[in-house]
Amino acid sequence: MTTISDPNPTVRLEDFPADVAAPAVGQLPPTIAWRGGERGLLELLDQTLLPGKSAIRSCRTKEDVWQGIRDLAVRGAPAIGVAAAYGVVIGARAAIEQAREGFLKNLDDVGNYLRTSRPTAVNLGWAVDRMTRVARDAASPDGASIWRRLLAEAHVMLREDAAACRKIGEHGAAIIPDGGGVLTHCNAGALATVAYGTATAPMYVAHEQGRKFRVFVDETRPLLQGSRLTAFELAAAGMDVVLQCDSAAASLLRSGAAQAVIVGADRIAANGDVANKIGTYSVALAAHRHSVPFYVAAPRSTFDLTLPSGDAIPIEERAADEVRGGFGALTAPAQIACRNPAFDVTPAELVTAIITEVGIVKPVSRESVARIFD
Amino acid sequence: MTTISDPNPTVRLEDFPADVAAPAVGQLPPTIAWRGGERGLLELLDQTLLPGKSAIRSCRTKEDVWQGIRDLAVRGAPAIGVAAAYGVVIGARAAIEQAREGFLKNLDDVGNYLRTSRPTAVNLGWAVDRMTRVARDAASPDGASIWRRLLAEAHVMLREDAAACRKIGEHGAAIIPDGGGVLTHCNAGALATVAYGTATAPMYVAHEQGRKFRVFVDETRPLLQGSRLTAFELAAAGMDVVLQCDSAAASLLRSGAAQAVIVGADRIAANGDVANKIGTYSVALAAHRHSVPFYVAAPRSTFDLTLPSGDAIPIEERAADEVRGGFGALTAPAQIACRNPAFDVTPAELVTAIITEVGIVKPVSRESVARIFD
Repeated sequence: MTTISDPNPTVRLEDFPADVAAPAVGQLPPTIAWRGGERGLLELLDQTLLPGKSAIRSCRTKEDVWQGIRDLAVRGAPAIGVAAAYGVVIGARAAIEQAREGFLKNLDDVGNYLRTSRPTAVNLGWAVDRMTRVARDAASPDGASIWRRLLAEAHVMLREDAAACRKIGEHGAAIIPDGGGVLTHCNAGALATVAYGTATAPMYVAHEQGRKFRVFVDETRPLLQGSRLTAFELAAAGMDVVLQCDSAAASLLRSGAAQAVIVGADRIAANGDVANKIGTYSVALAAHRHSVPFYVAAPRSTFDLTLPSGDAIPIEERAADEVRGGFGALTAPAQIACRNPAFDVTPAELVTAIITEVGIVKPVSRESVARIFD
Repeated sequence: MTTISDPNPTVRLEDFPADVAAPAVGQLPPTIAWRGGERGLLELLDQTLLPGKSAIRSCRTKEDVWQGIRDLAVRGAPAIGVAAAYGVVIGARAAIEQAREGFLKNLDDVGNYLRTSRPTAVNLGWAVDRMTRVARDAASPDGASIWRRLLAEAHVMLREDAAACRKIGEHGAAIIPDGGGVLTHCNAGALATVAYGTATAPMYVAHEQGRKFRVFVDETRPLLQGSRLTAFELAAAGMDVVLQCDSAAASLLRSGAAQAVIVGADRIAANGDVANKIGTYSVALAAHRHSVPFYVAAPRSTFDLTLPSGDAIPIEERAADEVRGGFGALTAPAQIACRNPAFDVTPAELVTAIITEVGIVKPVSRESVARIFD
């Protein structure tokens, strides 16, 4: 049927404990955890209630997982991918008594269902594809064996993500200025991944190492991921955090109080152009003007080598109501037209370096990007 | 007593009607109006209720005026100045039966009281000083005559401001691209002045002339003057308005959809450096990057020639709660530290031209700025 062989043929469920969770970062519970072995369930830290409340959302059915992704209880490309993988596991469990063909048929239905929770999330489709491939490559004739292989694969994905972020943190910690300040935009934090985050990973590692620094956080309108999530998680980890409006970034960089900028990425083109949360490009321009190094932290899975440059990256346009108000209050004329692009593109020439789990891309060019995929 | 003579010796109250208001712009009532001649009162358009409700706040006592300024019912440097002048008139009326010395003593008390409504507003102090000087220069021995002179002077100030803004609009209208777009930040609009505004004056005049263009408005966190006021007043005047988050300005300028940026100014130094609402500098950097002309519109009263450069302009730091929330909801950890500068400084080299009531300063330099004061 297929020529692809199991990418992790030695993965066995017996090698994992009943509970698999990333290490807790700071005082936060893990973003994602599996509890209870084969009869277990998925636990998500419900990010819609942050920063007010740290509540755990238990997902026992594929519908629970679908809703958790749709509601943004779990968010951030890597975290969504891992949650979706566990969603596949939970949905596939319904056909565990069936033989191979029936099991795989149900698996396809589960995958297609989960894809509809957030159709534009690249990592969601990627995770479903990976799980489907693993199931098809598994030689077992019975559903139960294939299912056990799937649960093991989801655990692998969770640990891979945590390990990649940890590596980004170790590679990037040196850029955190002891006694100085760094600026970040949006939440490429522990809450967007299984643990450590991407842009925040160097901060967590530097903080562990005892380095003292201040993190300036852009609030990140319209959805305020900076205020609600980044400021919250870094403060919970005991860091010195200062929140500001997005419009204050240029004057901060002019002031000299931040000696580095670190942001995450939603997608990186083959030439190193970076799509990230709207406003990132503004910050990069101000950093360039004031000779402050501008770093992007992202795992290799964020690179899309099929895109020659940032011009090929599609930019999602979001709902006008996010701009016209926020959190229940209308703050503009109700019928006013709005422009609300979710992302912008920062050209490679403004990016000092890209910090990945396999090393640092610097200077950023088509050639240096290609090298990390050798 | 004094060697300064009345700057407007021919001003006579008899030459004004009982009701003095700026022309209504669009469908808005005037920001400021005097109604009812010598027994009259000050009317303010209550901006704290916009865009939900257009209500008039009637001020019959100096306390009413003080509260209106304090509450931001009236805001914007020129509008505050004119409101304060009428506040002096209302407060001085209490001593109208007294002879010159008693009248002037009461006048000083009224002025000092009004100054405390917003201590950092430069135009407030300027307006009180001007009214005090006019009273002292008036030759009359009785309070009633001096008071009539003061009411006439407040009318002059109202009309001067409207006329200056109109002139800015006429000088600047040519920069509005027919069939194109302009971007503005904050509210340097009709609502911040007696009429027409500064940054918006060229838009109002071009709109009157039948030119078709789209105005992109930055929402202007933290206080959202762009969403609440600029978008509101321009849409009320029938313009094509598109609102966006501040962080979207750089991607807009990159897109080519706006061919000009026009902003107001809080203070301009002798070398042409411009202090304006936080975020203006970011917009200027993006405009520079994409070769979009960046215009500042401001009356001569905004220039402070005692300041050699923008480095000498003090930057007000505002309350953290404006950043931690601002939609009626707390959107960040309650105790998080915030950085909240009210203004930033855009260096003269990034400013294509400054549009004033006496002409256009271009290129912007110490010499060209000096020329408009010749």
